[in-house]
Amino acid sequence: MNENEIRAIVSRVLADMAGEKKEIPIESSARHVHLTKEAVEALFGKGAVLTKKRDLSQPGEFLSEQRLKLVTAKGEIANVAVLGPERKAVQVELSMTDCRSLGIKAPVNLSGDLNGAGSVYLVSENAVYDAKQSVIVAQNHIHMTPADAEYYGVKDSQSVKVTASTARPVTFDNVVIRVSPKFALAMHIDFDEANACCLGKDSTGKLSL
Amino acid sequence: MNENEIRAIVSRVLADMAGEKKEIPIESSARHVHLTKEAVEALFGKGAVLTKKRDLSQPGEFLSEQRLKLVTAKGEIANVAVLGPERKAVQVELSMTDCRSLGIKAPVNLSGDLNGAGSVYLVSENAVYDAKQSVIVAQNHIHMTPADAEYYGVKDSQSVKVTASTARPVTFDNVVIRVSPKFALAMHIDFDEANACCLGKDSTGKLSL
Repeated sequence: MNENEIRAIVSRVLADMAGEKKEIPIESSARHVHLTKEAVEALFGKGAVLTKKRDLSQPGEFLSEQRLKLVTAKGEIANVAVLGPERKAVQVELSMTDCRSLGIKAPVNLSGDLNGAGSVYLVSENAVYDAKQSVIVAQNHIHMTPADAEYYGVKDSQSVKVTASTARPVTFDNVVIRVSPKFALAMHIDFDEANACCLGKDSTGKLSL
Repeated sequence: MNENEIRAIVSRVLADMAGEKKEIPIESSARHVHLTKEAVEALFGKGAVLTKKRDLSQPGEFLSEQRLKLVTAKGEIANVAVLGPERKAVQVELSMTDCRSLGIKAPVNLSGDLNGAGSVYLVSENAVYDAKQSVIVAQNHIHMTPADAEYYGVKDSQSVKVTASTARPVTFDNVVIRVSPKFALAMHIDFDEANACCLGKDSTGKLSL
């Protein structure tokens, strides 16, 4: 067991003794695109695959070296990150601010739910891909393992509140718990929410029911 | 007494009977500039004054017909509103998103407090004005009359919580009460906060202590 793991246990025991649960790390997700294999080939050429630039906090997820431009009749946003690995559906996650600047009407949905999603053109150096019904504003959520869920006394799909311990304190009132043994403990919010609470590096939040 | 005034009284009485206080209208403030008389003349010419385009919700305040460009080494934002009447200090109110795009480090302050404020150049068609220590991110707040303060059981300068009744419910945890007989009841938040809670037209929020 390394020092960080021991520190984590000690901090958890101390919080338990005080009757408090340890706070949850909050990370802000920049706008990004998930692609299918078919979309990767359509945009980057036959046989192309997403190449890893660096790992993300959720195990298996990575930032690719590919970038795309988003285009609508109203505007464009260049240099948008593409995350890997490939998924079963193209999904574009934007902030409400981005949606307004592009003139896209998008719902606040959990990742994976494309009900009512907006549309946008994805543009690479070689091709244009019509990403119909792909754009959502990601519902904020907490990734956690089954052990974390037991510790916090919550279940998959449950809604909880999280109060950000930040310079401009805000409580997010409808945060969805997502449990999987593959996850690492982290709350994900978008840039609007991050700016609304003045999120800093290493910011955390207090979960309440 | 007109129909709207009667409606407001009936709705207040019904809320009282249910033991609930009526919700507070929430308005989002776009980025804007307040100028001194001296700055108005420096930017728009000797003898120039701000001309009214339309009244704002707070009595006496107005949107002027003048517009300015904000410029820093990192970027610029054009077509920024100038509010009237003139004030004793130049004050530029931006969202955290604006500050990031312009590379300005600005504090979250109540309007009127320029402690630690950031700097920006204001550019008109004729002149450039060096607005040193003028840029803040406005602390969210509620304008109310002394009668409103009595109704909600709060005092000037007190901090309260407000839960936005919106598509993406968020509780603002540190909202400052501002009381004056000149005010009209309204909570003011910036565009980041508005986008974080998906504020709509006619959105309201529930005050709690």
